[in-house]
Amino acid sequence: MKKVLTLVSAMLLAVASLSAQQSLWGGQSAKSPEIHPDNSVTFRLVAPKAVKVQVGGDFIEPVMGEVGGRAMEVSQPVDMREVNGVWEYTTKPLASELYSYYFVVDGMTIKDPSNVYMIRDVNSVTNVFIIPGDKGDIYSVQEVPHGTVAKRWYESPTLGMTRRMTVYTPAGYETSKAKYPVFYLFHGSGGDEESWMDLGRNAQILDNLIAQGKAKPMIVVVTNGNPAQEAAAGYSDENFAYTPAMGGGTRGGVATFPESFKDVQKFIEANYRTINKKSARAVAGLSMGGGHTFTISKDYPNTFDYVGIFSASGQVTDETRPQLQAMQKNGYALYVIACGNTDFVYQGAINYHNQLNEMGFEHELWESGGGHIWRNWRIYLTDFAQRIFK
Amino acid sequence: MKKVLTLVSAMLLAVASLSAQQSLWGGQSAKSPEIHPDNSVTFRLVAPKAVKVQVGGDFIEPVMGEVGGRAMEVSQPVDMREVNGVWEYTTKPLASELYSYYFVVDGMTIKDPSNVYMIRDVNSVTNVFIIPGDKGDIYSVQEVPHGTVAKRWYESPTLGMTRRMTVYTPAGYETSKAKYPVFYLFHGSGGDEESWMDLGRNAQILDNLIAQGKAKPMIVVVTNGNPAQEAAAGYSDENFAYTPAMGGGTRGGVATFPESFKDVQKFIEANYRTINKKSARAVAGLSMGGGHTFTISKDYPNTFDYVGIFSASGQVTDETRPQLQAMQKNGYALYVIACGNTDFVYQGAINYHNQLNEMGFEHELWESGGGHIWRNWRIYLTDFAQRIFK
Repeated sequence: MKKVLTLVSAMLLAVASLSAQQSLWGGQSAKSPEIHPDNSVTFRLVAPKAVKVQVGGDFIEPVMGEVGGRAMEVSQPVDMREVNGVWEYTTKPLASELYSYYFVVDGMTIKDPSNVYMIRDVNSVTNVFIIPGDKGDIYSVQEVPHGTVAKRWYESPTLGMTRRMTVYTPAGYETSKAKYPVFYLFHGSGGDEESWMDLGRNAQILDNLIAQGKAKPMIVVVTNGNPAQEAAAGYSDENFAYTPAMGGGTRGGVATFPESFKDVQKFIEANYRTINKKSARAVAGLSMGGGHTFTISKDYPNTFDYVGIFSASGQVTDETRPQLQAMQKNGYALYVIACGNTDFVYQGAINYHNQLNEMGFEHELWESGGGHIWRNWRIYLTDFAQRIFK
Repeated sequence: MKKVLTLVSAMLLAVASLSAQQSLWGGQSAKSPEIHPDNSVTFRLVAPKAVKVQVGGDFIEPVMGEVGGRAMEVSQPVDMREVNGVWEYTTKPLASELYSYYFVVDGMTIKDPSNVYMIRDVNSVTNVFIIPGDKGDIYSVQEVPHGTVAKRWYESPTLGMTRRMTVYTPAGYETSKAKYPVFYLFHGSGGDEESWMDLGRNAQILDNLIAQGKAKPMIVVVTNGNPAQEAAAGYSDENFAYTPAMGGGTRGGVATFPESFKDVQKFIEANYRTINKKSARAVAGLSMGGGHTFTISKDYPNTFDYVGIFSASGQVTDETRPQLQAMQKNGYALYVIACGNTDFVYQGAINYHNQLNEMGFEHELWESGGGHIWRNWRIYLTDFAQRIFK
C-alpha cells in the first residue's frame, strides 16, 4: 500500500515540478540577501546590461536631509559593484532588526527578484530581511505557541459600513474558558488593518512576549482607522483598482474613526470572551493612530487604563482640558507619549508632555532615537505590551 | 470640540504625509495597469535608459512549447514601445479573469513598480489585476456578507509538529448556533496554506457563491500539505530565510500529509461547529493536492461524500481497487476528476477515468481547456463548491 501511495506522490511531485516552470516567472539564481555569520549582508542582482545599480534601505545610516521643506532623516542608496554581470554590495555587520531594502537600476527602483519576501507600507512595497539575535528574534516566528490571526468583518452603523479588522487571539484562547483583556491598536495615515501585522510584527511580538512570560495573554484588535475605507487595499470592493495613498480612501466619510470606535468595542465585547472593565482595556496607535488614541482615550471616559501615543501628540486646550481632568479624577494606570528625537513630530510630543506636566497629568515620556519609522513603532509596541494588564 | 479634534487630525495627517516620503520607496507615477472600458489593458513602465522592455503574463495566448523535455504551454513576453522614456503596451480586450504579469527590462524580470498588488506562487511573485464582468466578479470582493479568514495553529502528533492552517468560516458563523459542513481543500507541490486564499481566491469565491445562494454556507479548511513544513513561507520559524521551492521544506518528514490528515479532521471537529457525517464532508485538491485527495478519500473510508481531484489522477491497482470498491459499497454523492486538455497530467487523468469506468466506479470527468494553471483551479473550485452539500 505504502509503495503505491509513494509512487503516486512521487509522480505528482515530478509532473508538478515540470509544470511549475511555466508559472515560475521572475526568479533569479543569485542568493540575495545573504546574511553572513557576522550579520553583514550581501545583496546581489543579475543585471549584465545595467550601467549603474544601487541598493537602498533602512540598513543604511540615515543623514539629515530635507523632504517637502522639512528637515527629515533620509537614507541614501549606495553603489553596488559589478562582476560578470552580477551586481553586489556587502554591508558592515548589522544590528538585529527587521530591515527593508530595494534596488535602483539605472534610475529605476525595483524589488529584489531573488527575494520573495516583501511588505507593503501604504503604496510602497519593499523587500525585507531579519537579522536575528535581539530585536530580530522578537519580530520572528519562534518555536512557541502561536495565537490565531483572524480577518473579521463587523458592522459600523456610525460609518454606515461593514468593515474589516484583524483580531489576534493568544495561544490557548479557543480551548480556554477564560476571559481576556483587550488591546486596541491603531495604524497611521495610509495604513490599514494589515499594517501592525505586517511591518508592525504584532503577532510575532505578542506570541514571543507571552511565551516568555513578559506580556499577559491578551486579545489585540487592529482596526482600519480610515473612515472612508471598508478594508485594506485589495480587500475592499475596489479590489486591485484602489491605489493606496496617505489619508487615502474614496468614499465620503460620514463620521470620524474615533466617533465610530464604539462600534468596534461593541463588536469585540459581544463576540469575544473579554474582561469588560477599564483595567483590562488598553489603546495605542502610531502617528494618525496616536491622534486617534489621544482622542478616544479622553472621549470614551473611564474606558482605558492603558494609553500609548506613539509618534504623535495631543493638545491641552480649553476644550480638551476638562476631559483630561476627568481622566485624572477617574484614574488610569499608564499614559505614554513615545517619540523619536529626530521625528518631525518630536517638538509636538514634547509640547504635549510639557502641557501635561503643567496640569499635573501623570504620564511617561519615552524618548528614543530615530524618526517616524516602523523600527521605532515595533520597539514602542514591544515595550508597551509588557507594561499593560499588570 | 469637533473643531479641535479635526484640527489635531488634520495636523497629524499633514505631518504623516510628509514623513511618508521617507519610507515610500519605489513608486512610479505611471498608471499601470490601466484597464480601459473595453477591457483592454495598458501596461506602463518608466525606464528611460532601458534598451528593450517586454511584458509577459497569462493574458498572452500561450503557444505549445517545451519545458524540461515535455510539451508545455508557454506564453511569450511581448515587446513594449517607448515614448519619452515611458514603455507602453496595450492588450486587445481581455476576457473577465484574474491575470498575472511581469516586465522584462533588458533581460531582467521585474515587478511593475506602479502596482502594489502581487501574489506569490511557490517562489515566484507576480503582479495581478482583475478584469471584472464574469469570472473576475466571482474572484473579487463584492458588497456581500464576508466570511472570516483565520490563520490557526494545530497540533499534528502524526508529524510531531504544531502546524498552521487557514480556516474560512462563512458570514454569520460566529453569531449562529448552527452546525456547518466542512470542505477540506489541498494545494499543489510548492504551495501552502496561503495558496488557495491568494491565487485561488477561495474567500471571495465562497463569499460570492454563498451570497448568491449558489453554494451552501460551509467551513473551508486549507491545510499545508508539505509534511516537512510547519507553515507557509515567512510564517515558520525559518522566517524569511526559507526559499520556497517545489516539494520544498527542510525538516525530515516522519509521515505523509495524508497519514497526518486525521490530526486535521480531529482539530476541526473539536474546534468548530461541524456536522460530523459523511454527507457534510468534502475534499478536493489540485496537482499534488489532487493526489492527496485521491489517497485520503479512500484511506479514510466512509468519511467524504464529495471528492474533487483537480489536475491530477489516481491509480487503480491491486492495492487501491479494494479501497475504491469499499467506497462504491459505502456510497458517495460526487467524485470528480477535473483536468485541462493541454495539462501534462491530462493523459493520466484520462487513464484513471477509464480505469474507474472499467470497475463501474461512478464519477464525473470535467474536461476543460488549458493546462496546469490557477485559472483552471479557480474554475474547478467555483464549480465544485456549487455541487457539494446539496
